[in-house]
Amino acid sequence: MIPTWLNEPVKQVNQQAVDAAEAHQLQLTKPPGALGRLEELAIRLSGLQGRIDPSIDKLQITVFAADHGVAESGVSAFPQAVTNQMVANFCSGGAAISVVAKQLGAQLEVVDVGTASEPGELPGLISQRAGAGTANLHHQDAMTKQQLVTALEAGRAAVMRAAESGCQLFIGGDMGIANTTAAAAVACALSDVPGELMAGPGTGLQAEGVQHKAAVINSALSRYSGLADAPLETLRVVGGFEIAALSGAYLSCAQLGVPALVDGFISSAAALAAVHYIPAVADWLFYSHQSAEPGHLMILEQLQAKPLLDLGMRLGEGSGAAVAVPLLQLACQLHNNMATFAQAGVSEA
Amino acid sequence: MIPTWLNEPVKQVNQQAVDAAEAHQLQLTKPPGALGRLEELAIRLSGLQGRIDPSIDKLQITVFAADHGVAESGVSAFPQAVTNQMVANFCSGGAAISVVAKQLGAQLEVVDVGTASEPGELPGLISQRAGAGTANLHHQDAMTKQQLVTALEAGRAAVMRAAESGCQLFIGGDMGIANTTAAAAVACALSDVPGELMAGPGTGLQAEGVQHKAAVINSALSRYSGLADAPLETLRVVGGFEIAALSGAYLSCAQLGVPALVDGFISSAAALAAVHYIPAVADWLFYSHQSAEPGHLMILEQLQAKPLLDLGMRLGEGSGAAVAVPLLQLACQLHNNMATFAQAGVSEA
Repeated sequence: MIPTWLNEPVKQVNQQAVDAAEAHQLQLTKPPGALGRLEELAIRLSGLQGRIDPSIDKLQITVFAADHGVAESGVSAFPQAVTNQMVANFCSGGAAISVVAKQLGAQLEVVDVGTASEPGELPGLISQRAGAGTANLHHQDAMTKQQLVTALEAGRAAVMRAAESGCQLFIGGDMGIANTTAAAAVACALSDVPGELMAGPGTGLQAEGVQHKAAVINSALSRYSGLADAPLETLRVVGGFEIAALSGAYLSCAQLGVPALVDGFISSAAALAAVHYIPAVADWLFYSHQSAEPGHLMILEQLQAKPLLDLGMRLGEGSGAAVAVPLLQLACQLHNNMATFAQAGVSEA
Repeated sequence: MIPTWLNEPVKQVNQQAVDAAEAHQLQLTKPPGALGRLEELAIRLSGLQGRIDPSIDKLQITVFAADHGVAESGVSAFPQAVTNQMVANFCSGGAAISVVAKQLGAQLEVVDVGTASEPGELPGLISQRAGAGTANLHHQDAMTKQQLVTALEAGRAAVMRAAESGCQLFIGGDMGIANTTAAAAVACALSDVPGELMAGPGTGLQAEGVQHKAAVINSALSRYSGLADAPLETLRVVGGFEIAALSGAYLSCAQLGVPALVDGFISSAAALAAVHYIPAVADWLFYSHQSAEPGHLMILEQLQAKPLLDLGMRLGEGSGAAVAVPLLQLACQLHNNMATFAQAGVSEA
């Protein structure tokens, strides 16, 4: 039942390039370590790209959109119609991710993995629907096995397009009313913690709404056991099409050798599933920002991830990751273009 | 003795533009507040630029370089000759700030406020020397009153150039071997805390060196009283030419209406002096990053500043501020170019 690609090995990091990049950093005209995490970024990217002069010039941003049956359980501040309305907004250039993608010169595509009703043809929209939204995880499995495979493969297909066009960084984004509930449920299942620790305000719930959301998650998870060791099954029973697509994308990034910059709460829950499934996927993931969604911190801790930004963002769409891209680009440019002590005739310590 | 410009009033923030920008943010297609601090940045910039569509397209980076008599007291891991060597490196494009400035399309200039020996003519170098380095603050006043005025005016002149060329953001940088000692002494004096709380490794001191640095600061400060209420006198007796130039630049930014993005430890000590002198200067300052230099946190707390980045950088030169520029630019672009709920036909919460 599981497609063979899911178990393909992860591409290995080029340790020789890492060592060469580390040695190069020590020659640049600055006290050792003075560029902090920008040095780490350049060194990691050297290892992933297998070259001493890494670059992030070409990037693809893919927003996966889908609807969630659990929306009918009253877990979101916005109506379900907003998912398709935002799909149209992505495609017409008005959404946050559209604005940032344009500024970055990034390829932006939107994949409909299964919104409640077909959004119709739109520029930049790819249709790879697993269904008309998931079933309500509050009461039943969110999706069938076939739907899970379709969603995972939507992620894989996006990364294959990125790899084929020579993209040096992949960003996955999410859109789906009620998807913080599904993402929190996935993270709870994989972390074996109750809903109270992962449920947050999402797009704007008040305290009572957050409690209800936690209760919905706990009720759903009470139907299952052993999910912590079954990341694909977790995605199937309490996940969402766009969350599974993101997990499939991160797995594919690691297999195909495309570094990925993970966005916020939804994306990190998807990354957690991917890393549970194949731990070495972690080598290919960068973490962009800490979301204002409270449960994100716990997911990041499990991933041993220290994101680059902490700006109180909580929008999804890949927006936090896109905003962090200039840091990776500047890290590369500093690494590649600074003078060495010898070149500049600068004395060392 | 004090030049009249130092007491000119600070330009007022345009509250009407702030209110209009806040109202506009609520119309954009995202949950209210979902862009976190990027929203605050756009709103603040609207108020400073007096327009609802702020922009940071044109920016000037001025690195102030000077030497410090206290270098002879063994407070730095690098020899004093490095100051001029780095001035040459800035001008020839090999330093970190040169690389980032080029990438940002920023105007980069270097002002020699008084290195130990004249660096000679170099492309992009402006000579406005207050002396051949300061006197050793360990044993005597770092500078005369006239030297202080010359240094403050080097900062003012840089901001006047920025204002005349229509720059929308000013970044000041610093270069000066031993200047973390002078900056720490300034911050200790203004905060009335002992050297142990502000002395750090700088470019790479070990624990013993940091203790010695703290002792040098304490010894210097023991000669004076009442410095906490005398920011200009503090700059004179324990500061540095480039630190005073930065203070003069921040005062001028606020007076001339040019927003400034403050870099790390040295720049923040200079900002602290400027804000002690005229508290409303704070309206015009943005804080870019938290330095790895331990004392920076205490300076930021006094300034009630929450910087945008925390990447473990500790290089100076304006590099941390320059790396944060894309965040301000993206904040403006999101604010100006996202669709409203009405424009995109997206339902509200």
